[in-house]
Amino acid sequence: MTRRQLHLNAFLMNTGHHEASWRLPESNPYASVNLDHYRNLAHIAERGTFDSLFLADGPVLFSQVGQRPSGALEPITLLTALATATEHIGLIATASTSYNSPYNLARRFASLDHLSGGRAGWNIVTTAGAEAARNFGLDDEPAHATRYERAAEFLDVALKLWDSWEDDLVVADKAAGVWGDQRKIHPPRHKGTYFSVEGALNVPRSPQGYPLLVQAGSSQDGRRFAARYAEAVFTAQQTLNDAQNFYADLKSRAREADRDPDHIKILPGIVPVIGSTEAEARQHEQVLEDHIVYEHGLHRLERLLQLEPGALELDAQLPAELAPESAIEGAKSRYTLIVELARRDRLTVRELIGRLGGGRGHLTFTGTPEQVADTIEDWFRRGAADGFNIMPAVLPSGLDLFVDHVVPILRARGLLRTEYGPRQTLRERYGLPRPDNQHTAALV
Amino acid sequence: MTRRQLHLNAFLMNTGHHEASWRLPESNPYASVNLDHYRNLAHIAERGTFDSLFLADGPVLFSQVGQRPSGALEPITLLTALATATEHIGLIATASTSYNSPYNLARRFASLDHLSGGRAGWNIVTTAGAEAARNFGLDDEPAHATRYERAAEFLDVALKLWDSWEDDLVVADKAAGVWGDQRKIHPPRHKGTYFSVEGALNVPRSPQGYPLLVQAGSSQDGRRFAARYAEAVFTAQQTLNDAQNFYADLKSRAREADRDPDHIKILPGIVPVIGSTEAEARQHEQVLEDHIVYEHGLHRLERLLQLEPGALELDAQLPAELAPESAIEGAKSRYTLIVELARRDRLTVRELIGRLGGGRGHLTFTGTPEQVADTIEDWFRRGAADGFNIMPAVLPSGLDLFVDHVVPILRARGLLRTEYGPRQTLRERYGLPRPDNQHTAALV
Ligand SMILES: Cc1cc2nc3c(=O)[nH]c(=O)nc-3n(C[C@H](O)[C@H](O)[C@H](O)COP(=O)(O)O)c2cc1C
Ligand SMILES: Cc1cc2nc3c(=O)[nH]c(=O)nc-3n(C[C@H](O)[C@H](O)[C@H](O)COP(=O)(O)O)c2cc1C
Repeated sequence: MTRRQLHLNAFLMNTGHHEASWRLPESNPYASVNLDHYRNLAHIAERGTFDSLFLADGPVLFSQVGQRPSGALEPITLLTALATATEHIGLIATASTSYNSPYNLARRFASLDHLSGGRAGWNIVTTAGAEAARNFGLDDEPAHATRYERAAEFLDVALKLWDSWEDDLVVADKAAGVWGDQRKIHPPRHKGTYFSVEGALNVPRSPQGYPLLVQAGSSQDGRRFAARYAEAVFTAQQTLNDAQNFYADLKSRAREADRDPDHIKILPGIVPVIGSTEAEARQHEQVLEDHIVYEHGLHRLERLLQLEPGALELDAQLPAELAPESAIEGAKSRYTLIVELARRDRLTVRELIGRLGGGRGHLTFTGTPEQVADTIEDWFRRGAADGFNIMPAVLPSGLDLFVDHVVPILRARGLLRTEYGPRQTLRERYGLPRPDNQHTAALV
Repeated sequence: MTRRQLHLNAFLMNTGHHEASWRLPESNPYASVNLDHYRNLAHIAERGTFDSLFLADGPVLFSQVGQRPSGALEPITLLTALATATEHIGLIATASTSYNSPYNLARRFASLDHLSGGRAGWNIVTTAGAEAARNFGLDDEPAHATRYERAAEFLDVALKLWDSWEDDLVVADKAAGVWGDQRKIHPPRHKGTYFSVEGALNVPRSPQGYPLLVQAGSSQDGRRFAARYAEAVFTAQQTLNDAQNFYADLKSRAREADRDPDHIKILPGIVPVIGSTEAEARQHEQVLEDHIVYEHGLHRLERLLQLEPGALELDAQLPAELAPESAIEGAKSRYTLIVELARRDRLTVRELIGRLGGGRGHLTFTGTPEQVADTIEDWFRRGAADGFNIMPAVLPSGLDLFVDHVVPILRARGLLRTEYGPRQTLRERYGLPRPDNQHTAALV
């Protein structure tokens, strides 16, 4: 019997997850639109036999361009380019259910799945924030619950579209002039609250049937959604205990939804800051913190906590009175995580910004390769994770360090493959079954 | 002074533009989702020093899958993969203004322009047909005039988005912690009839500023639109005379719109069926015609002419009474072209289907390489074309034949580059100027 295997996802982001990473001498400030930068990252991740790589997204220009590198390539487009530069690694793109139409998005993911030989994944998000809404004809963001309601219907429609071609439809009988079996086309004929979609997809069924479904919201609505649809879940967790609770909760929700809990993989994020000694690692961290512009962080934090400008002071703690999560229509679970982190460690706003600067609420772990591997193994063995979302503070160097120094330890411990072996789909990498087509499943 | 140069665009489509091409022994019936097939075509076109290649599109599963290969990869996605496999050739994707939102589409084209080093082009279409409409929540297609009205507003918004970053915005001052100049961000703040789009694009300005704008509708509305926005125009013309009239009309409309008529390139389509002798070429054509299933063509023609099923008979001519173009809400100019073709040559429905089978209304020219080159040169010199949209009946063989046998003749006549030379953007290939940013143009 093979040992339970750890899954690794490389969360790629420009010059790194630390907000000040672009200011280091080694960083390319034009990396966000540079294909070679991303190709290099993909090659490093393949060298580390990662399961997948991942790009975040929001249809909005978030930050002030004065503060740090802004803008990015659209993820499905960039991952398509990376598909041609890689052979084994999975390619997970974020896309919003609030600001796309199912027909367009379903065909784009089906196309990526074809072009990559079955390596496509979709990180399904509902997109918080009024700024995004205003780029799509709305005055304000739809309520949190409404966004998740729309997301569920979006998924139902997308699944109907992906299943609208049976796998064995094509007969390609040249002599008879018959290409496919029309009876194996199943138009969705969907009429719902948010969408009406009549016809079949215009892309033949792809290698995986449809992309791996990944989800990244941790609110109650987010978990309900994940339990129903997600095959992998990204999550930000600050402590082993929180991560264990989240893990147990999602697995039990999956069970309640009549799903095999092993078919939903939980991947907390970790920002590893690695040094050959603890002191060297701390020093790396210090250099990054020294480059933070705290005034910028202050404004972002005020927005995120839905406070008035000027409500926070850098050298004081958060106000004692803050809104409950229920009053937040944006990113609910991230709000709670940040408030709890600040309260627990009695952080000043300045210290909180320092902590968030590294991973926006994800666990930053600073130490030697051995210590990083220990933490990963600990969480993995103690019911907190099926794998990790690796979020290097600085790119490409942080990914290089992880692959050169942490990966060998994980391999030596039998937790991670030493090579890819034959080509596999993204689902196969994660040890997940290929989903049945809803129109043929019953016939088996 | 260099001689006026001919522009060539390779219109790629599955196993070829002839509807029966997939039935030939040489054809791959799975070509539509096969990256190697398209890579090979792109390499052939680069060997022929074409200006660009092009993919058509509609967000709908058009044909009955029984009749011929159906479905395709989404064009921007496929062209992104081809961008990484090519160095010089332009990459033109069709996308609909009726079934996309400007923010999403603008960023995808900006991304392709970045990833290809400035080789992106957009064939702007309004998408005829109720079937497409029903995939996007509508009951029927919007009226022809409404579609073009929306298209114009779509372009205005897209241009505002592409111009929302000035070219020299990024300062990348690491020491000061200043990445860009916020004053050089110009949010569209657009509130119109069809769209409201508030914020700036989340993609830095791309090499070309924005993709080459191509247009392919020939109705009165289509021409008005082209005169205002298009830098290149695809068109189906059956005779030299019709093509000359169209050419003169569009150039004079451009002049009236205060544009340089040389900055709108007219590219009629041609389906070259090539043989080393005329007889051999005719034989190729005959083989293709022998593989047409006429009953299928009959149904398609009835739909296109907005007739009841059963209204047409294979061995009779078209009914004497047909609706005027003004009654057609779908593809107006294609309707008129087909009706006029049938009337002019007194074709039976069977003969008409045979003619359309090759190029859906585009000129099919059957002959030797010399004869094909003569026709191309004739149209080019006599004010009918700035170049051609090459639509091989069978792919890849038809493109191979064109590149191996017609291209050398065009080169020998000084009409076509013999090599690409240094890298250029798609606009540079077509001899078009880089457009100014609307926010900086006035300052020059
Ligand atoms: C690793 C990770 C990556 C995420 N990436 C995105 C993203 O790219 N775009 C987005 O809109 N949301 C993203 N999210 C989800 C948002 O953070 C989400 O809105 C947040 O978790 C709140 O969701 P909730 O309200 O369900 O808790 C991500 C979350 C995690 C944990
Ligand atoms: C070469 C060429 C390619 C075209 N490709 C497409 C296409 O991919 N998708 C589409 O919806 N229309 C396409 N069209 C445009 C339609 O045919 C168009 O709807 C038709 O010309 C009618 O437009 P009109 O009503 O303005 O004449 C193309 C036209 C030409 C000449």
